[in-house]
Amino acid sequence: MAKYQQLVDQLREQIEANIWQPGEKLPSLRQQADQSGLSLMTVMHAYEVLESQGWILSKPQSGYYIAPRAAAPRPRLPTQTVARPEQTDTNSFVFDVLQATRDPAIMPFGSAFPDPELFPQRQLMRSLVKVSHNLKPTDALNNLPPGNADLRKILAQRYAQQGITISPDDIVITNGAMEALNLSLQAVTEPGDWVVIENPSFYGALQAIERLKLNAIAVASDVEQGIDFGELEQALQRWPVKACWLMTNRQNPLGFTLSHARKEQLVALLARYGVALIEDDVYSELWIGDEKPLPAKAFDRNGDVMHCGSFSKNLVAGFRIGWVAAGRHAQRVQRIQLMSTLSTSAPMQLALADFLSTRSYDSHLKRLRQTLAKRKQLARAALQQVLPAETSISDTPGGYFLWVALPAGINTTQLYHLALKEGISIAPGQLFSSSEDFRHCFRFNTAWPWDARAEAAVEKLGQLIKQLHP
Amino acid sequence: MAKYQQLVDQLREQIEANIWQPGEKLPSLRQQADQSGLSLMTVMHAYEVLESQGWILSKPQSGYYIAPRAAAPRPRLPTQTVARPEQTDTNSFVFDVLQATRDPAIMPFGSAFPDPELFPQRQLMRSLVKVSHNLKPTDALNNLPPGNADLRKILAQRYAQQGITISPDDIVITNGAMEALNLSLQAVTEPGDWVVIENPSFYGALQAIERLKLNAIAVASDVEQGIDFGELEQALQRWPVKACWLMTNRQNPLGFTLSHARKEQLVALLARYGVALIEDDVYSELWIGDEKPLPAKAFDRNGDVMHCGSFSKNLVAGFRIGWVAAGRHAQRVQRIQLMSTLSTSAPMQLALADFLSTRSYDSHLKRLRQTLAKRKQLARAALQQVLPAETSISDTPGGYFLWVALPAGINTTQLYHLALKEGISIAPGQLFSSSEDFRHCFRFNTAWPWDARAEAAVEKLGQLIKQLHP
Repeated sequence: MAKYQQLVDQLREQIEANIWQPGEKLPSLRQQADQSGLSLMTVMHAYEVLESQGWILSKPQSGYYIAPRAAAPRPRLPTQTVARPEQTDTNSFVFDVLQATRDPAIMPFGSAFPDPELFPQRQLMRSLVKVSHNLKPTDALNNLPPGNADLRKILAQRYAQQGITISPDDIVITNGAMEALNLSLQAVTEPGDWVVIENPSFYGALQAIERLKLNAIAVASDVEQGIDFGELEQALQRWPVKACWLMTNRQNPLGFTLSHARKEQLVALLARYGVALIEDDVYSELWIGDEKPLPAKAFDRNGDVMHCGSFSKNLVAGFRIGWVAAGRHAQRVQRIQLMSTLSTSAPMQLALADFLSTRSYDSHLKRLRQTLAKRKQLARAALQQVLPAETSISDTPGGYFLWVALPAGINTTQLYHLALKEGISIAPGQLFSSSEDFRHCFRFNTAWPWDARAEAAVEKLGQLIKQLHP
Repeated sequence: MAKYQQLVDQLREQIEANIWQPGEKLPSLRQQADQSGLSLMTVMHAYEVLESQGWILSKPQSGYYIAPRAAAPRPRLPTQTVARPEQTDTNSFVFDVLQATRDPAIMPFGSAFPDPELFPQRQLMRSLVKVSHNLKPTDALNNLPPGNADLRKILAQRYAQQGITISPDDIVITNGAMEALNLSLQAVTEPGDWVVIENPSFYGALQAIERLKLNAIAVASDVEQGIDFGELEQALQRWPVKACWLMTNRQNPLGFTLSHARKEQLVALLARYGVALIEDDVYSELWIGDEKPLPAKAFDRNGDVMHCGSFSKNLVAGFRIGWVAAGRHAQRVQRIQLMSTLSTSAPMQLALADFLSTRSYDSHLKRLRQTLAKRKQLARAALQQVLPAETSISDTPGGYFLWVALPAGINTTQLYHLALKEGISIAPGQLFSSSEDFRHCFRFNTAWPWDARAEAAVEKLGQLIKQLHP
């Protein structure tokens, strides 16, 4: 064990044993080095780790103090610093899971994408052919960041239809929502900064935080209410949080949609602490009900909500077009994009702008939502038949994910490997959290035709789960 | 002045005055804090700054030492840590210059791109129309990283034509070379690591280093020989360098092409120090002469050369397709891409693979090279007529940049602003270096038709320079 780790363990034990009280000052780096015989660097490293794990706090020009403890039950936050790639295999595992969903021989219940056969292939091709015929040499230049002007105007109009005023100038077209989210995060953080995410959350958030050397505070979210506001506020009080990255509509993986009241509260709470909200809203169009829910962006008063959207989940995955309505951070987002990918491809932007200028998009979305709702219902019923009685399956409207919590003790990472051998992929809980909290859960993609193959795969999955059920 | 800065200045003066000798040990952080009455954090900050500026060295578990001094003349390296965005306006300035080249009313001598009218618009459109008609719902999935298999095979074949064996599996298709370069840099560095670049260098390298919180060592390059191997080796000896990012063919902005012998030496030298080479080769196709020069990648024995290419400078800018032949880092590059932009758009990859499978590309390139060579000659002659006698204009074969060194004392940033008012853009030396060494230089893009407008713009430029010439 590394020397600093020994010191970390020793101090943690002492804190847990109440040898150190909350608020008490720790020995200075120098004193600790003298006492322990360790080098100053080793002590610093240990203190940094303890700080990142929430055991201690540093006060500039003063020293290190034992962090206050939250009221019982044992605080979930900060669950942990997201481990670095060297220390974990989360990244490799995500990569493996993604790779598996690319094999057409494998039943893609673990995929994040809907059945591409649901997309309006013919109309999109028509738009692409049309713009291909009309490409101009100057198109590359004209579609540099912030991106194609027509496309940004159409997006602004779609916001306006919901009563949200967004200037086309504040919208940046990106290489999918993945780039939008990453650029947004970079725009408001520096390495070492603190970011709140949900637990569980989209694995892309965990990866981005690892990649950008940020510290994550994973705040509990649940299938009914979404993120816990009490815990969130505690986190904001306790840590110098720069950004909060979460989903407000059809959260991945849980599926919940925050009410308008809760979205408004969320924005107000973050604004009180000066924290930017990175709102991942890639399932915004996959609502069910009377009216499309608003994004949290609708309640943004100071331009600190960065609303990230995409066409990849509801229109076409391969074009790689997303956007961010980045508020007061729009300029910075553009600059980072210019430095990292330069821009989004011009023909893709033009084709999408052409397609969206027709009425096809909304009628397609209507059909898509209906089909997805039916498929989800069928999938849910099929799963209920084969899963153990103690299983809970999420029942949230819209989207195409089910969140399945198996009886505790069943390890879904193990299930994933067994299922893969049978040609079935699932998205195990491990993907969505660096804690162990969701090891008995998995996300199930219902956006596939409910044919004999799917039925057989679900049946097989049920058998595997029974084998694992003690 | 900040307290740490006072200590920095004080120690630097002492070192310059030989109060401290090279190799001598500095007081420990603790001792220095006690002596100076400053806090430990302040002292640490000061030592870090001194280290980043090359005055002192830290040895793990030991302490800080005065850095050895290079032989006279005064060492150029490490010129400096590239300043952070907070501390400099380089980034904004690059952004402004880029924005200016987008205005069609402005004569784009400062642009990095060639005249898009030189590109085979009609044939590209034909390929795009063809693939648009044949798009399949599964295309998105099939073109995820590492990217379209046909396109990677064609690229591998083009390497093979030069006698270079590259497996298609080691090639990753990216959103232009900009993404290729950024992913490569991320694949081999962590924040705080040291990277060698050239002085002057492509501003994208400076920006990437800033963005990723790396430290840059800018090693002198000149128009004849390229990077100075003596200085490079000194840098490798002195600093724990992780990567070297440079251009080997038609370097931007100087225009030189390294000889095969020097490329081989470069790769061997870096290999000796275990340093990865990020080879920016976006002008690879714009050679002049009997044979296309090899990239340094041709001499790579251990897979540590990451060769980044693009179609944006020689075929089509708006598609945003580049690649990296990433050797043993290919897997890591793919993973970072999956996390940051997910992938490159499928129709763009397919259209390019289709176009490249015809013979059009090579015949286009041949015509393009001839046109560019003619335009460059005309531009050079035109500039020679209007510039002061003491001006030196680079005379390197291939590409479409001239590097113009005006008489010392003429500030090209000032010239840039004056010229812009007259509707003319240039790329001033300031863009390519965080040192002051090139403030009298500018890069001039010759890839535009030599018509009356261009002639008049060059004449105007000459007048402005005369006004600035003391």
